[in-house]
Amino acid sequence: MNIILLSGGSGKRLWPLSNDVRSKQFIKLFKTDDQQYISMVQRIYQQIRSVDPTASITIATAKSQVSSIRNQLGNQVNICVEPCRRDTFPAIALASSYLHDNKEIKKNEPIVVCPVDPYVETSYFHALKQLDALAEQSRANLTLMGIEPTYPSEKYGYILPETSDPVSKVHTFKEKPDLLSAQAYIQKGALWNGGVFAFRLGYLLEKAHELIAFTDYCDLYQNYSSLPKISFDYAVVEKETKIQVMRFSGEWKDLGTWNTLTEVMTEPVVGKAILNENCKNVHVVNELDVPVLCMGLKNIVVSASPEGILVSDKEQSSYIKPFVDQFSQTVRFAEKSWGSFKVIDVGENSITIKVTLNPGHQMNYHSHERRDEVWTVISGTGKAILDEKVQPIQPGSVITMPAGCRHTVIARTELQMIEVQMGKDIRIDDKQKHSLTCTE
Amino acid sequence: MNIILLSGGSGKRLWPLSNDVRSKQFIKLFKTDDQQYISMVQRIYQQIRSVDPTASITIATAKSQVSSIRNQLGNQVNICVEPCRRDTFPAIALASSYLHDNKEIKKNEPIVVCPVDPYVETSYFHALKQLDALAEQSRANLTLMGIEPTYPSEKYGYILPETSDPVSKVHTFKEKPDLLSAQAYIQKGALWNGGVFAFRLGYLLEKAHELIAFTDYCDLYQNYSSLPKISFDYAVVEKETKIQVMRFSGEWKDLGTWNTLTEVMTEPVVGKAILNENCKNVHVVNELDVPVLCMGLKNIVVSASPEGILVSDKEQSSYIKPFVDQFSQTVRFAEKSWGSFKVIDVGENSITIKVTLNPGHQMNYHSHERRDEVWTVISGTGKAILDEKVQPIQPGSVITMPAGCRHTVIARTELQMIEVQMGKDIRIDDKQKHSLTCTE
Repeated sequence: MNIILLSGGSGKRLWPLSNDVRSKQFIKLFKTDDQQYISMVQRIYQQIRSVDPTASITIATAKSQVSSIRNQLGNQVNICVEPCRRDTFPAIALASSYLHDNKEIKKNEPIVVCPVDPYVETSYFHALKQLDALAEQSRANLTLMGIEPTYPSEKYGYILPETSDPVSKVHTFKEKPDLLSAQAYIQKGALWNGGVFAFRLGYLLEKAHELIAFTDYCDLYQNYSSLPKISFDYAVVEKETKIQVMRFSGEWKDLGTWNTLTEVMTEPVVGKAILNENCKNVHVVNELDVPVLCMGLKNIVVSASPEGILVSDKEQSSYIKPFVDQFSQTVRFAEKSWGSFKVIDVGENSITIKVTLNPGHQMNYHSHERRDEVWTVISGTGKAILDEKVQPIQPGSVITMPAGCRHTVIARTELQMIEVQMGKDIRIDDKQKHSLTCTE
Repeated sequence: MNIILLSGGSGKRLWPLSNDVRSKQFIKLFKTDDQQYISMVQRIYQQIRSVDPTASITIATAKSQVSSIRNQLGNQVNICVEPCRRDTFPAIALASSYLHDNKEIKKNEPIVVCPVDPYVETSYFHALKQLDALAEQSRANLTLMGIEPTYPSEKYGYILPETSDPVSKVHTFKEKPDLLSAQAYIQKGALWNGGVFAFRLGYLLEKAHELIAFTDYCDLYQNYSSLPKISFDYAVVEKETKIQVMRFSGEWKDLGTWNTLTEVMTEPVVGKAILNENCKNVHVVNELDVPVLCMGLKNIVVSASPEGILVSDKEQSSYIKPFVDQFSQTVRFAEKSWGSFKVIDVGENSITIKVTLNPGHQMNYHSHERRDEVWTVISGTGKAILDEKVQPIQPGSVITMPAGCRHTVIARTELQMIEVQMGKDIRIDDKQKHSLTCTE
């Protein structure tokens, strides 16, 4: 199975755990059998692998998510990077031409496109395999997955099939209806549109060339920013006549808010927390290293991260976005391809961060124009390179880097450092990358 | 007026704002007219000064509180340091001999003893002055303040006066009665014991010598740890026959729990926080530099500090102590005579703290046996002294101190540094003080 996972979203609705660089799919909330916490993207990746060990998985995503994906899924997964956000039609077109031109997938091969963030069980991936087979065998150009609705939601699009058969031609679509229309649609047998599409690669490339003038993947990539924002549903699905839908009745949840997210947490607490015996229906997700104490709370979610603290009635947790918009957008923690960092102090003309490099990894060789930096190594070993000079480092090593000094660290074991940045206007975009020749 | 303020308490009930070194009286929660936040001890000190500008104020307290008091009240206030905790009778005896031997207060002068933490208005201090006058003029040996009770509390001791006159002889005492007895006592005209005592200094010294074998202040100080723990009420008050009580009917509150504390907060929020319009009777005290967002909460107090986060129903906030006892007792922030510090990261073999020195102040000249330290100056100027060598420091200065290196910093302007401590067993008691001759 060739599968494209669409990984989008900026994730203010799960503040303070999601931020501008960590979308909800990267939050580690799901406990595995071996007591590890994994994220949505790790969970779905493992689920696909368990159902189809040889699946070719490609993640279509923005540049800003590449580090998190590499951190959580490693270097094996294919990533098709969108140079900027242009909605789902350009994203699927780009990923399709990437698969054709770079991965040499043939035009008659079926492709399944699926969002990265539904909360589902294994049955969902068996259904994706059926969808894959349908796309290959049937005469329809497009095969969708229709989720059997559990309530008349106003949040989803609806697909009305012609029949109640497991696979049926599509009669009509209805975008996010109001409550009454949703009820009426469900009575007529409508299904939720789960955002899953299966097609033969050639079909999609044909559609892409119809709507976008481009020669190949590289050309499309280079001109990506000039494309209009348009959804796949609007550009392709709603105009296609040879289209069918396959019913899916297994568990399917959209974990977009704290309220829905806490429903699927296996335990009430992730992180350090104590709930007294008078707490009822309380969930705590605490990413800080100090404890949360909850006394006598009812129907409340508490979440704490280096970016802030949320204490919300569960019902009202769906409405946090406009309030979160008021907070400063400084990112205070992030996972990178090489490890992670966490802001531990913000001064007037300084920022102090804790940097963790994974064994064998290194950060980009870079310099800053408007800030000096000091590293104090607190654990692990490796080497630092400053202006092409290599030096071994270990706990207690102190490295000072005036503005302009090119620098990087290569971790031998897991390596942690306290980095003090000092300057008048410390900005994340003050970073010049350099190529590095020597590493010995 | 000579006044001894008894400053005690360790303060688990106001966790996470109080800890082993910061008792509740040092938490800055009270907004002044010029929009500054002050603590209970600062508030009571200012109130005494406003009523009696020439009052001689002595604070009787433990060693662990001296830094906080110097930080908040400066160097002018007298501090009588108890070498260890021995309850109120030894504390008052020590402070009394301190006043007689070190401050040359005469034996016929009146002394007023008062706890440092009642939440009161100016009228209370006018009452203290009356108490002072009564102690000087009357034939009673002891004059107490009786607070007119507002409800049958089981938390306080009761004083039953012989008459309902403003000043009356005491009939009997009753320690913390049950609810029914409290109701009965109040019906008989009993008053709460507010822990305020006035006496002539000579009387107290006589009592002290009766019960403790000592020659003078120094002798008492040196043998302090051998004294039994005994309260002033038990040792003196309940045995005295020439004793009177003065009624006080002004505002008097004991802010021992979050519930009572939030009642006197002038605004619902101290620190960074947003409450949505569906919050009712919610208070937030946030000492972190990231925001707290509250949505749809009712009757809840939220408090956050570098030591943890409390989210509690207000009623239940009185019962946090046993839960707080389960948390590690590592102090993560403290005010010192020279400034303050805050733990910003704890690693396996490292602790990183942010140190702030007030202008003109310096820390003790000291060394550590089992840890190395690195300072990175992030703001301000001053000088560092390492093994008797003086060097100027400024933002960007990096100072490395291997174990054994004697070191201090003298701040010229307000000075902030990131201090990384590294070692296998970092302990607060691994600190050797040294005397310093050179500072130039």
